[in-house]
Amino acid sequence: MMQELEKVLKSIEPLDSEWLTRAQERLDLLAKPPGSLGKLEAIARRYGAIKKDLTPSTQRKMIVTFAGDHGVVVEGVSAFPQAVTVQMVRNMLEGGAAVNVLARHAGAEVTVVDIGVNYDFDSAEGVCIRKIGYGTRNFALEPAMTRDEALQALMTGIELAKNMARDGYDMLGTGEMGIGNTTPSSALFAVMAGLHPREVTGRGTGVDDGALKKKIAVIEKAIALNRPDPTDPLDVLAKVGGYEIAGIAGLIIGGAASRLPVVVDGFISTAGALIALALNAAINDYVFYSHLSAEAGHRRMLDYLHQEPIMNLDMRLGEGTGAAVAMTVIEAAISVMKEMATFESAGVEGQHTT
Amino acid sequence: MMQELEKVLKSIEPLDSEWLTRAQERLDLLAKPPGSLGKLEAIARRYGAIKKDLTPSTQRKMIVTFAGDHGVVVEGVSAFPQAVTVQMVRNMLEGGAAVNVLARHAGAEVTVVDIGVNYDFDSAEGVCIRKIGYGTRNFALEPAMTRDEALQALMTGIELAKNMARDGYDMLGTGEMGIGNTTPSSALFAVMAGLHPREVTGRGTGVDDGALKKKIAVIEKAIALNRPDPTDPLDVLAKVGGYEIAGIAGLIIGGAASRLPVVVDGFISTAGALIALALNAAINDYVFYSHLSAEAGHRRMLDYLHQEPIMNLDMRLGEGTGAAVAMTVIEAAISVMKEMATFESAGVEGQHTT
Repeated sequence: MMQELEKVLKSIEPLDSEWLTRAQERLDLLAKPPGSLGKLEAIARRYGAIKKDLTPSTQRKMIVTFAGDHGVVVEGVSAFPQAVTVQMVRNMLEGGAAVNVLARHAGAEVTVVDIGVNYDFDSAEGVCIRKIGYGTRNFALEPAMTRDEALQALMTGIELAKNMARDGYDMLGTGEMGIGNTTPSSALFAVMAGLHPREVTGRGTGVDDGALKKKIAVIEKAIALNRPDPTDPLDVLAKVGGYEIAGIAGLIIGGAASRLPVVVDGFISTAGALIALALNAAINDYVFYSHLSAEAGHRRMLDYLHQEPIMNLDMRLGEGTGAAVAMTVIEAAISVMKEMATFESAGVEGQHTT
Repeated sequence: MMQELEKVLKSIEPLDSEWLTRAQERLDLLAKPPGSLGKLEAIARRYGAIKKDLTPSTQRKMIVTFAGDHGVVVEGVSAFPQAVTVQMVRNMLEGGAAVNVLARHAGAEVTVVDIGVNYDFDSAEGVCIRKIGYGTRNFALEPAMTRDEALQALMTGIELAKNMARDGYDMLGTGEMGIGNTTPSSALFAVMAGLHPREVTGRGTGVDDGALKKKIAVIEKAIALNRPDPTDPLDVLAKVGGYEIAGIAGLIIGGAASRLPVVVDGFISTAGALIALALNAAINDYVFYSHLSAEAGHRRMLDYLHQEPIMNLDMRLGEGTGAAVAMTVIEAAISVMKEMATFESAGVEGQHTT
């Protein structure tokens, strides 16, 4: 399976600068002061270059929400009980969660993947069952996953992305549901960036000061105990990550390998992106960072990756909600490139040439 | 006509805090950590309170793009020739401008209003003709408008908003087209805020260093010559404003008077908002500031108004483009309030009560 992963990683091509140039040339013909649509132009340029198409489709959009549980919740790191993972998955399957509402608004579909929930769903409920385990182990005591489990979860994300590319999707979004999952995300980032857990750990769904202190201490302990190797992304993912984080990393890798734009949600999804980019930095060309999460640590994570998110709406819900909202902005950007009249076609004079 | 304006201004009610509370209570029942949708919740709360409805409609959205010319362009303050105002109005009527594309994407309509273009359109072209003058006078030499002209333009915006409320529109957006109109916007803001023109003047559609210097000098001269009275918004509007800025101010006033949310575009539209709010500060309850423009001075304008925009996409095109994109975010926020399941209906446990 490791060879399979290597093969996928090797297949990923950095963007062709010629296509970026062609897209920018197209944007510069449009009847507007050059560059005046700011980030919309940057989005359209890159989206066009990813698809090697100056009139790319944004029609079929899929948000993939990976659900998994976390052994570490027994340490009291979350404001919600573990059972809420299952309850929220059901809410998503019934279309009542925030991600469903925002995806509908964006014209996107949602696939909920049970990649590691501590519960047996009936596939008739509509969940995509790709379970690797019944939640991770408590990484305060032992590695969260074996290397093989982490790799399986990663390959699951890759396979899903490839299937969606084959099925004609134009754009993917990442999302997650997993009570406790800001803890592994912070742990993973602390290791990868060589930062102290206190610098990257926030309140998640809303823990109080005492629980935040405990959360930081648990992460410190986990890193000291498991000694994840920051130069080996799979080791970090296995020891202090989570199934849904691995699935997200895989979806990003698989999306890039299939030349699909991947819209990354917030803090937990960006932790997945960290792993994907550590495996192949060229993947970043395919990633759109949707929003700056209000979760402490996300700004730092994006800075570490030298990335600017599309929006800052002070959201911190996860599920794929930020990715859904950003998809509407991305689609708006592509509409501009596809539908605006040019200076010439509209009979509009250009700037004074002084 | 002044009495008519006074009457409209007096009819505007600040938001009912009870409705804000009811909307927040509704949002807190939804199956998500409280406050976790950040700005989306703040938007939904206020939108609901404006309409006194917890399931408010966002169906019918109208962007009103006011077009006007500016006598001051003879001073060389713009990167584009004045004829471009007419050409861009035509482009809008044909559906090829950025605002058309982004409004279509947002599910909004666009009305283009000739409130002061230096040209006679044929009404068969589809423009809404409400012309007060053939462009303003050159305010480097004399007042841009008479007080009566400014008032007429203001009342035009009010009347349009009231008509649209009557016709069942749910939300209005502001926009403008007018070569040279960052110059009056900066002048107006400098006077209202008591700032030096150099602190509030930027490159507009893209003038070079020399033209920027000239632009600042022209504004300085205009203020010294016309001595607009910062305590009299109509005086400022008339002496250093513009027809489209007055129309925007009127649309905002009329929207608030009709209990319609008004989505304000960028720099020039916010200059219109400055006038509206100076006439009645309660109007601000009805305004959504769509985006932070890349035009230097807009950050300062929003700071002066103590407002945070919804987005920052580095846009600086005007027309109503930022308002159009923001409408999609506002609509997303309302979808959340209307469509999400509650903790109870979804059978999801709440937070630990520790």
